[in-house]
Amino acid sequence: MKFQSLPGFRDSYPADMAIRQHIITGWNAVAHRYGFEQYDGPPLESLELYVAKSGEEIVGQLYNFTDKGSREVAMRPEMTPTLARMVVAKGSSLRRPVKWFAIPQLFRYERQQKGRLREHWQFNMDILGEADVAADAELLAAAIDSLRIFGLESADFIARVSDRRLLSAILLHLGASESQVPAVFAVVDKWERQPLAVSIDKLVTAGISQTGIDGLQAAMRIRQDHPTIHAQMQAFEALCAAEKWLDPAVTEAVDRMKRYVEILDAYGLAAYLQLDLTIVRGLAYYTGIVFELFDAKGELRAICGGGRYDKLIETLGGDPMPALGFGMGDVVLAELLKQRGLLPDTKPTLDAYIVQVSADVETVVLALARKLRDDGLSVERAFTLAGVGKQLKAASALGAAKVYIVGPDEIFGSQQVVERDMATGTEQRISLASLLGDALAGKLATR
Amino acid sequence: MKFQSLPGFRDSYPADMAIRQHIITGWNAVAHRYGFEQYDGPPLESLELYVAKSGEEIVGQLYNFTDKGSREVAMRPEMTPTLARMVVAKGSSLRRPVKWFAIPQLFRYERQQKGRLREHWQFNMDILGEADVAADAELLAAAIDSLRIFGLESADFIARVSDRRLLSAILLHLGASESQVPAVFAVVDKWERQPLAVSIDKLVTAGISQTGIDGLQAAMRIRQDHPTIHAQMQAFEALCAAEKWLDPAVTEAVDRMKRYVEILDAYGLAAYLQLDLTIVRGLAYYTGIVFELFDAKGELRAICGGGRYDKLIETLGGDPMPALGFGMGDVVLAELLKQRGLLPDTKPTLDAYIVQVSADVETVVLALARKLRDDGLSVERAFTLAGVGKQLKAASALGAAKVYIVGPDEIFGSQQVVERDMATGTEQRISLASLLGDALAGKLATR
Repeated sequence: MKFQSLPGFRDSYPADMAIRQHIITGWNAVAHRYGFEQYDGPPLESLELYVAKSGEEIVGQLYNFTDKGSREVAMRPEMTPTLARMVVAKGSSLRRPVKWFAIPQLFRYERQQKGRLREHWQFNMDILGEADVAADAELLAAAIDSLRIFGLESADFIARVSDRRLLSAILLHLGASESQVPAVFAVVDKWERQPLAVSIDKLVTAGISQTGIDGLQAAMRIRQDHPTIHAQMQAFEALCAAEKWLDPAVTEAVDRMKRYVEILDAYGLAAYLQLDLTIVRGLAYYTGIVFELFDAKGELRAICGGGRYDKLIETLGGDPMPALGFGMGDVVLAELLKQRGLLPDTKPTLDAYIVQVSADVETVVLALARKLRDDGLSVERAFTLAGVGKQLKAASALGAAKVYIVGPDEIFGSQQVVERDMATGTEQRISLASLLGDALAGKLATR
Repeated sequence: MKFQSLPGFRDSYPADMAIRQHIITGWNAVAHRYGFEQYDGPPLESLELYVAKSGEEIVGQLYNFTDKGSREVAMRPEMTPTLARMVVAKGSSLRRPVKWFAIPQLFRYERQQKGRLREHWQFNMDILGEADVAADAELLAAAIDSLRIFGLESADFIARVSDRRLLSAILLHLGASESQVPAVFAVVDKWERQPLAVSIDKLVTAGISQTGIDGLQAAMRIRQDHPTIHAQMQAFEALCAAEKWLDPAVTEAVDRMKRYVEILDAYGLAAYLQLDLTIVRGLAYYTGIVFELFDAKGELRAICGGGRYDKLIETLGGDPMPALGFGMGDVVLAELLKQRGLLPDTKPTLDAYIVQVSADVETVVLALARKLRDDGLSVERAFTLAGVGKQLKAASALGAAKVYIVGPDEIFGSQQVVERDMATGTEQRISLASLLGDALAGKLATR
């Protein structure tokens, strides 16, 4: 009888865990630098919370069940509904803007595919209560820094940005009705994943003219056709002018995007940006600027996605409150760090190993371990008496920086221990009193 | 429409989260000091894993359900089955002793009672592959240090220790059969929670003589009757001698307990110990030394429980492997820290807030924020331009240690910013070049 983990769930042995902790430590550091406070919520919530945010379709992808109190519940597939629920519960008592982060484990019952997991850890940063585009820029800066902190640079990843208000304003300008806009978003969302002819057919169905479609196609190509965000913005503005799209709504959205790029440029992050009108991020929920981070080679799935969702708090029963945020998973990030040789060394390390030469010095070994540990050092010793050579081998395998050799001749003679530097092999004798204090050393070193 | 969390699940707002992180940081530090490596496993496992360890009774207390692949699964109620499964999977390839820790969130569908939660975070330390009592002592030392690290002392909590092998040997000596021992363990497990007469009746049923029962009663009282572990051990040895219990099996168990106390004494931890033969820790699973940590006043539930479980790895399909470990939850510990005034300050803090005096210095503000954050500092700024007074107020509310005031007169005149120490109110002017370097400062300070 051998038990196995469920498909799609990871066992994290210490070497795996060291990588996850490295990632979580980096994320925590970025959240700290940007002045975000950490929150957390339940990994199990009422099913209706997720349905209220994402519609009934979500249920098919959830770990949902009826609990023993007859409640319909689900393991969280994302953190935002919990965040929104918690913010709604506190109402106006929260200092604004709310700048919170969380690092939850999330669960989806996805169809099992190679390398596709059913759980992952996700870094979430959200800003609530701020409508200004400066908050959008701050959020993307934080997302970019959440990769930069691991040593990734603009050669390694890009941020593809768009604004749903911009695309929406253009579509309305092109004669689409408000009710047709979501259908077009659905087309654009799949732009790079379906044949162009299919996309164009659907745009025709949505009532967009051939001229309009030509213009949209040109807009969707801007990222491919121009190398930098500045060139892309210029080309886009020129296109808007040429196509005569610049009604007040489109102009406002273009100006907002220019401001967004301006702030990120002042942050020194322009090299990471790409204007990409194909970025929509699903059908509902998002209301403004949206972005996705990808590896520069385009080999991996998105590393991070986010944007503005100004309607969610209202949808979940709160007073209207602008909001924006992103989620960044650990799986794709770890893969990218591995590719770039940026994963940390996961070999164990130890500050000190104490070698016990004979049974009669045990109290010294224990007192020394106690003292060093109380000083904050990581300390190991053998549980049972073994040869000095064997203990030194163990110290080496555990990555000990120092070894203290506690032997009866030194202890009961000169009241000293031998300290060995494991990197250099040099040894020196140290008085027990300097390690433990005069009183304890004197007591322990007396037979 | 307002959504709520499920009963028994906590929402952790930043102030709550700061407390949990304080506790987790302390636990991590202790694990590090004792040379334990971190692992983690899935919060969802096959139901049969928990049944294999704890029997069918456990199912009534679990969040269990049938997943979309028709698997019987359960949210983990404890970490040890996952640990054992992972160790079994690696077989003999793991370096021994295995010294691993984890800090999982655990779930139980408990009947809803005041203050009774259905989830908590638990610190787990386990040692596998070491049968010697030195490992038991090391584990308890680590458990004690896991409270000491928060400032708790021997006036605040105690460790009640026993050994199931010791009690079992006495019972066998008193004429109980092997098959009666579990029934007596069940009686002893409830010793302090049921009337003495009930316990005695059950001992009679189990075939223990009146003399035997008198002796057992005296053994159970030792902790009350004697103040220190040394006095308790002496009294217990005297009782064993007086009752003529000292056959080879009992003697071996007593010697082991003496050795256990001796090691912990050398670690300087004797003041925390109490010999308590009523500690059994449930009916199955544990096989040797067991312990529980309680607040000294006895007002709270157990803070921590653990012991030796030498049969589990075999039960779950591995080769025989001695093992021991403990679990320490966050809820009772936080309650005790609160009672003792040992909780951390949870007010927000910030290294620096940057005050922007006018629109034309924005690029300086952003470049300065970038620089300070890249240096690892936590930095805030207002998203939209506001009066200097309002920004200083925000800086103060956020607990900023320093404020940088970036104004056009200083920037475009002397190329300086004003740095204010928020604790003392003192201000000084600093050259922008010293903060950002000559090139960037020169560029940004030019209109």
